[in-house]
Amino acid sequence: MNIIQPDLSSILNFISERDISAYKKQIRDHYTSLYNRTGKGSEFLGWIDLPQIFSTDVPGEIQSHAASLKDKADVFVVIGIGGSYLGARAVIEALSHHFGTLHDKKRFPLVLYAGQNLSEDYLADLMDVLDQKDYAVSVISKSGTTTEPALAFRIIKNHIEKKYGKEEARKRIIAITDKQKGALRKLAEEEHYRTFVVPGDVGGRYSVLTPVGLFPVAMAGMDIRELLHGALDMATHIRDKKDDFENNPASLYAAARNALYRSGRKTEILVSYEPRLFHFSEWWKQLFGESEGKEHKGIFPAAVTNTTDLHSMGQYIQDGERNLFETVLSVKSPTAELGIPSDADNLDELNYIAGKRIHEVNLKAEQGTTLAHIDGGVPNFRINIPFINEYSLGQLIYFFEMSCAISGYILGVNPFNQPGVEAYKRNMFALLGKPGFEKETGNLKRKD
Amino acid sequence: MNIIQPDLSSILNFISERDISAYKKQIRDHYTSLYNRTGKGSEFLGWIDLPQIFSTDVPGEIQSHAASLKDKADVFVVIGIGGSYLGARAVIEALSHHFGTLHDKKRFPLVLYAGQNLSEDYLADLMDVLDQKDYAVSVISKSGTTTEPALAFRIIKNHIEKKYGKEEARKRIIAITDKQKGALRKLAEEEHYRTFVVPGDVGGRYSVLTPVGLFPVAMAGMDIRELLHGALDMATHIRDKKDDFENNPASLYAAARNALYRSGRKTEILVSYEPRLFHFSEWWKQLFGESEGKEHKGIFPAAVTNTTDLHSMGQYIQDGERNLFETVLSVKSPTAELGIPSDADNLDELNYIAGKRIHEVNLKAEQGTTLAHIDGGVPNFRINIPFINEYSLGQLIYFFEMSCAISGYILGVNPFNQPGVEAYKRNMFALLGKPGFEKETGNLKRKD
Repeated sequence: MNIIQPDLSSILNFISERDISAYKKQIRDHYTSLYNRTGKGSEFLGWIDLPQIFSTDVPGEIQSHAASLKDKADVFVVIGIGGSYLGARAVIEALSHHFGTLHDKKRFPLVLYAGQNLSEDYLADLMDVLDQKDYAVSVISKSGTTTEPALAFRIIKNHIEKKYGKEEARKRIIAITDKQKGALRKLAEEEHYRTFVVPGDVGGRYSVLTPVGLFPVAMAGMDIRELLHGALDMATHIRDKKDDFENNPASLYAAARNALYRSGRKTEILVSYEPRLFHFSEWWKQLFGESEGKEHKGIFPAAVTNTTDLHSMGQYIQDGERNLFETVLSVKSPTAELGIPSDADNLDELNYIAGKRIHEVNLKAEQGTTLAHIDGGVPNFRINIPFINEYSLGQLIYFFEMSCAISGYILGVNPFNQPGVEAYKRNMFALLGKPGFEKETGNLKRKD
Repeated sequence: MNIIQPDLSSILNFISERDISAYKKQIRDHYTSLYNRTGKGSEFLGWIDLPQIFSTDVPGEIQSHAASLKDKADVFVVIGIGGSYLGARAVIEALSHHFGTLHDKKRFPLVLYAGQNLSEDYLADLMDVLDQKDYAVSVISKSGTTTEPALAFRIIKNHIEKKYGKEEARKRIIAITDKQKGALRKLAEEEHYRTFVVPGDVGGRYSVLTPVGLFPVAMAGMDIRELLHGALDMATHIRDKKDDFENNPASLYAAARNALYRSGRKTEILVSYEPRLFHFSEWWKQLFGESEGKEHKGIFPAAVTNTTDLHSMGQYIQDGERNLFETVLSVKSPTAELGIPSDADNLDELNYIAGKRIHEVNLKAEQGTTLAHIDGGVPNFRINIPFINEYSLGQLIYFFEMSCAISGYILGVNPFNQPGVEAYKRNMFALLGKPGFEKETGNLKRKD
C-alpha cells in the first residue's frame, strides 16, 4: 500500500510550519464532526463510507450490466451535468487513449457526453454521430428535471426509440437516479429501464464513487474495483491518521492551503503535465470551488496543463500578481514508451537529450518550473503520483474529497451545499416563463 | 459592415463612467505610440497591419497549397506551442464539427496537434493514429529549437519518411518559420520543404493572422479571406475611431477593465455558452495573461464554458470572493437547427419550452446568469456576436489584440515581451545538462 503524499516542503519558503500546524487542533474536531455526522451539511456525508460500502457487491452488478451492453454500442452517451458529469469524465479521460477512435486499439464503447450544456450546435452535431453509430445511453439525474440533462434526454430518447424501436431502446437506456422519488425514477419504472441508485446522502460533486461515476467508467472498460480499492486505502489511511496531523495528507493539504489563503493567496492553480488529466482538474475545480466559494470567501480554483500552458499562462504565473499558489500533480512514470532519437545533423540541437525518454524531459520541465515559480514568489505543493491508473485515481479522489471537507470546515462554510447555483436558474425559469415563476418574472421585468 | 461592440452598461453598477473615461486622454496617446511604432515593444508591432498586408496575395498561395495537400491527408498535424498553436486551434475548433471524424460530413483533413506538450503518453497515442492514417504535417517555430515542437518534429519526421519515403515525405511537410535565420529555415532549405514566413515583427500570441494561423486554418477547410476580412473591418473601425473614445470598442474595453482592476478586480473570466469556443478562450488567456502578467501586476485571465461550468464554478462566481469580473461572448444565432419536442407525459416538466429552439434556452440561461452575477456583485461585460463564422472571429481576434495592446500600455507594461517564460526553460536546460547551461546547473545544485 503506497499512499500518495503531498510534499509541502517548498511551501515553507512562504509560510511557517507554525502557520500550518495552527490548524492542528481544530482539524481533529472536524474529523470528529465528519465521522460522527454532526458538522455542517451532515445530511450529505454519505461519501465518507462509499469506498467501504461499494467494496461489496454493487460493482459486480455494474460490471455485469456494462459487459452485457458493451458489444452492441460503438458509442456510449453519458447524459448529466455538474457532479453527474465531471467525475465520470475525469476518470475515463485520464485512462483513455488521447485520440478516441482514430486508432485500432479501441475495444470498448467511446464515451460521449450530453446534457452538460445548452448548445444547440453541440447537440445537433452529437445527433449526427448517433445517426450513424450504434449506441446506448445513461441518463444521470437525481430529480430528472434539471433542465440541461432533461432536455438532452428528451431528444435522445426520441432518437433511440426511432432508431431501434421502443423495445430495444429500453434495453439501451440506463437511468441513474434517486432510489424512490423524482421524475426520472417514475419514468424508469414505467419504461422498465435498468436503474442504478444515486444515494440520497451524497451530493453531486462527491458522487464519482457511486454508480453516477462507476457505471460510465465501467462502460469505458476501466476497472472500477481498482478505483474503489485506491479510494478505500486512502480512506483507511486518513481515518487511521486522523489524530496524526503531520502524517495525514488531507490534514496537511487542508491546513496549508488555508494558511496560504489567510496570507493573501486567493487563487490556487492545479497543475498537471499530462493532458489526459484535464478533466480531472475540471472535477477538482468543481469540488473545491463549489464547496468553498460562498459567503464572499474561498480560494478561486484554476488549472493549467503544462508544458502547454507555460507558453500561455506561464508568464503571468512567473511574474504577475503574487496572490497565487500552485498544487502540482506530479506523475512519476508514463504508460507508453517513446524515446528521443539521435539525428546526424542536430540542427534542432536536441542531441544532448537523444536516448532519453520523453517523460524524463517532462519531469525536468516540471522541476525547472517549480524552482522558477518558487523563485518568482509562487508557493508550490507537489502531489507525487507513481502512475496514472484506476488505483491512484481512486486514492486521489478520496484524498481531495476529504481535504475539501476539512478545508471548508476550516473556512467556516458548509462544504456540502451550493445555494448560489440556484440564482441563475431562477432567473432563467422566469425569463422562459416557467409555470410557478410568475413572481420572479415580474421582478425581472421591473428591473428592465 | 456590422462591427462587434462590447456592452458595458452593467459595469456601471460597479464603477462610474468617470472611472472609465479617466483613461480617455492617455488612450489617444497610446494609439499614437502604436500606429507610429514608438511605444514599448515597438519592434513587435507588425500585427497592426496584418489584415491589410494579407488582404493581398499571401492567402492565395496558402489556399492553393492547402488545396493541393488536402486530398492526400486524412489527418493534418500542426506542430507548435504557445502562439504557434493556440491561434490556429482557436479558429479551427470554433468552426469545426464537435465530434471530429465520428460522422460522415467531414471533407477536409482532421487537424491534430503535436509539440504543445512533453507528454510521452500523448505523443505515443498520436503515433498510433499516424501509423494508420494518411497525413501531412506543418512544423511552426521561429527558431526551430524550441524544445517541445523540435522534439515532436524529430519523431514525426522519422515516421513520415519511413512511411512514405524521403521524397514523398518532403511534399507532406510544410515549415512555417523565420524568413532567413534559424535551424528550421536551414533544415527546410536543405530538404526543400514548402515554407511560409513568420514575420519577424510579430510575436507568437499576435501571429494568428500570419501563416502561423492561416495555413492550418486553410487546411481545415475554413475561409481565411473571410477571417482576414473581419479583422480588416475591425482594424479600420478602430483606427477610424481612435480619437472617438465612446465609440471605439477596444478603447472602451481596455479602459473599463483597467478601471475594474484598479478597483480590486484581480481576475477576469471569459465566459462563453458554446463549447466550441473553448480554445478561443485559451487563445484569449495567452493573449492577455502573457501580455499583462508582469512586474507583479496584471489581471489573472480565467475562462468558463457555460452552462457546463455554472454547475461547477458557478457557485464560486455567484458567492465567492468579490475580486472577479466577467466578459461574456454572447452568440446570437446558432449554426444548426434543433428544436425541443413536446412530450405527452411531461414527467420532466419541459413542455413549457416545447417548440422553442435549444439556443433560445441557452440565451435565457445567459441572461439569467448575467442578472444573477450582477446581483451577486460580479461586473459583466457583454460582447455581442451575431454568428460564429470566419468573419466574426476575424473581428474578435483583432478587437482583442488591440484592446490588449492598449490595456497593457495603460497598465504600464510592455505587452509584447514575455521575459518570465524563460525562467523555467533555463532551469530545465540546466537540469537536463544542456551544453551552455553549465553555470545554471551549478546554481541549481547549490540550492539542493
